[in-house]
Amino acid sequence: MGAEHVSILDGDLQDQQVAGYQSALGVTQTTTVTLPGIQTQSGFKFDTVDVNFLTLGKLSPERDNAILVCHGLSGNAHVAGSDPLTGRPGWWDLHVGPGKAIDTDKFFVIASNALGGCSGTTGPGSLDPRTGKPFGMTFPQVTIRDMVQVQAALLDHLGVEKLFAVIGASMGGMQALSWAVDLPARTRICIPIATCTAHSAMQIAFNEVGRRAIMADPDWNGGEYAESRFPSHGLAVARMVGHVTYLSELAMTRKFGRRRQASASDANQFSVESYLDHQGSSFVKRFDPNSYLYLTRAIDEFDLFGTAAPTEVLRGVQARFLVISFSSDWLYPPVQSRELVRQLKRAGTAVTYLNLETDYGHDSFLIENPPFADVLGHFLNGEHAPRPKSAGAPPVAEGI
Amino acid sequence: MGAEHVSILDGDLQDQQVAGYQSALGVTQTTTVTLPGIQTQSGFKFDTVDVNFLTLGKLSPERDNAILVCHGLSGNAHVAGSDPLTGRPGWWDLHVGPGKAIDTDKFFVIASNALGGCSGTTGPGSLDPRTGKPFGMTFPQVTIRDMVQVQAALLDHLGVEKLFAVIGASMGGMQALSWAVDLPARTRICIPIATCTAHSAMQIAFNEVGRRAIMADPDWNGGEYAESRFPSHGLAVARMVGHVTYLSELAMTRKFGRRRQASASDANQFSVESYLDHQGSSFVKRFDPNSYLYLTRAIDEFDLFGTAAPTEVLRGVQARFLVISFSSDWLYPPVQSRELVRQLKRAGTAVTYLNLETDYGHDSFLIENPPFADVLGHFLNGEHAPRPKSAGAPPVAEGI
Repeated sequence: MGAEHVSILDGDLQDQQVAGYQSALGVTQTTTVTLPGIQTQSGFKFDTVDVNFLTLGKLSPERDNAILVCHGLSGNAHVAGSDPLTGRPGWWDLHVGPGKAIDTDKFFVIASNALGGCSGTTGPGSLDPRTGKPFGMTFPQVTIRDMVQVQAALLDHLGVEKLFAVIGASMGGMQALSWAVDLPARTRICIPIATCTAHSAMQIAFNEVGRRAIMADPDWNGGEYAESRFPSHGLAVARMVGHVTYLSELAMTRKFGRRRQASASDANQFSVESYLDHQGSSFVKRFDPNSYLYLTRAIDEFDLFGTAAPTEVLRGVQARFLVISFSSDWLYPPVQSRELVRQLKRAGTAVTYLNLETDYGHDSFLIENPPFADVLGHFLNGEHAPRPKSAGAPPVAEGI
Repeated sequence: MGAEHVSILDGDLQDQQVAGYQSALGVTQTTTVTLPGIQTQSGFKFDTVDVNFLTLGKLSPERDNAILVCHGLSGNAHVAGSDPLTGRPGWWDLHVGPGKAIDTDKFFVIASNALGGCSGTTGPGSLDPRTGKPFGMTFPQVTIRDMVQVQAALLDHLGVEKLFAVIGASMGGMQALSWAVDLPARTRICIPIATCTAHSAMQIAFNEVGRRAIMADPDWNGGEYAESRFPSHGLAVARMVGHVTYLSELAMTRKFGRRRQASASDANQFSVESYLDHQGSSFVKRFDPNSYLYLTRAIDEFDLFGTAAPTEVLRGVQARFLVISFSSDWLYPPVQSRELVRQLKRAGTAVTYLNLETDYGHDSFLIENPPFADVLGHFLNGEHAPRPKSAGAPPVAEGI
């Protein structure tokens, strides 16, 4: 990718006024529905679960064109279209919309806020019906698989028996993998992006630093914070750690180098410092510190295979896979995707793997990225309505 | 290096009880001397400067065998020998001592705590003679070159006109480079290790996260903290960020993987989390948060060449260089050392470069590392008393 794509490289479109960017979908509005509860893997029973979700496009009469998009740590259900309040585009507006890689003219796109989140779905900030007070740290530990169970309940509610595809990056990719394994009959295509089957020690370490930063903030107060004493400093530091890991060194050098801020108040500050400060302080306006603790814990605990043999775990899988990694992603390095692909192949699963050469690190899936969009679009359209090979450049699969 | 070297891999020997390890030097004790003051690059004039230092070995009658060892961010003057209070070995005891790479039987080794530090040398925790209170954030911004100026005053005090060698890793490597450039007539050999001529945006970013963590701690209180309300949480988080960057992913995987703590109290904690927590909490017992801010700022601001042409800056350099980097060091990646070497060669400087294949990331210089010790020892001994080539395996220089 060339430097001309850097303009919206900011980790998360939510954090960013994207000058001149207009969503082709116009304003979109999420809905919250109360669904029958689930029992978590840890044994906690929710009587009901609220789920905030967005649908785009139309479910076909055959109900065979539904795509579930799963967000990462800091995402939400507002995947595309303009936010009615802020006017900002959804976090994947670049890739979801009419004629885009995930084409809302063809597909019925579903996105929901994850269980444990803080954007409308039941999470630690929700009221505990037993006490009438927010759960806080009494919220049960939830897992990636619990999140998938709630998504499945949403699909039941929407009348979708089988997904055409489940797509997700980072934490969303872990959900996609769990769909294929836990609900094989409901998953036709699985597209895990920039993710892994289990966090390494270093991935856990970065999350732990974020958690410690939050819990070290006295205003966190054991998870029982009032709006007037919100642990914004700790959450901001956690977000800053995250942002450093989302970018590649090259992207940072190109974007910031050793440049200084121009404004008088920040005269001595390096631009990269202002960037991180901004990312930290804008994040605290929209994210819940306890959710950050619970979601990162769910990510760290995720272990698709655990102590079982991968071939055993993958035995019942019916989905076809498109696995995507990014060459410059050092937080979820391509070697983890390669290992996943190796295991999928060993288990006899149909899998296409692409390690895309990009400069922008883990964030490569969030930014304008034509090769990524092409690959995603070709794969989905090819599977949806097979075309002759001459109709478009097919994705080039990397041999492994 | 094999797995058998992992035993003392803990980032900093100061933080670590090294089971069964005995320093060949026995107990060593640092001294503090009050020297004539300096004027900082920022224009501040210290009337006097206290310098905590340690010497090992004997200065030769010709005064030509002095080696200055410069510590990194969290180091101090206690480079080798056992601490009289804690019994712990100095931070480079593995490489400094009789018969070691930096051989105290041959060389007069000098180590001093850096200006701005918190282990006996004047820093933000020192009393401001104008007010009788600690400087805190009224301490002037100090630079790597200011630190070198103070080291030069110490050498004057010790009667050492010319250094046989100046050696340092990380922040210490920046000091070594400054010696060669700022005091060319006093520097015979310069050995910068795992360092760079100017921090990249990513290196600044990691330091900024640490600084923000400290300043976000309400007990930091603008730098005016009492012992009873010490910003230990913020400093611990800063140290945790640092430690994640000091290790390689492979080292972390080998050392921790996804293992859990065995103890009942930490039953659910990953070992890597306990490790980071321990590193954070032991650091706060020995380090000053304001020093952390000042030293990381000095590191980020360091720019050996600035806007000048490197050949101009290096024109007067008389030192011979041994530049060392580590293949798995992603905090100070080898590419930065290669670029330094390229510039030294362009300027006609005598330089040997080694990129050592190690698995332990930035910490590779702190741990048991025979190839590193061999290279260092051969270079110093070869320069000190040239031997026939057959007398030992010469270091293998990497072509660039």
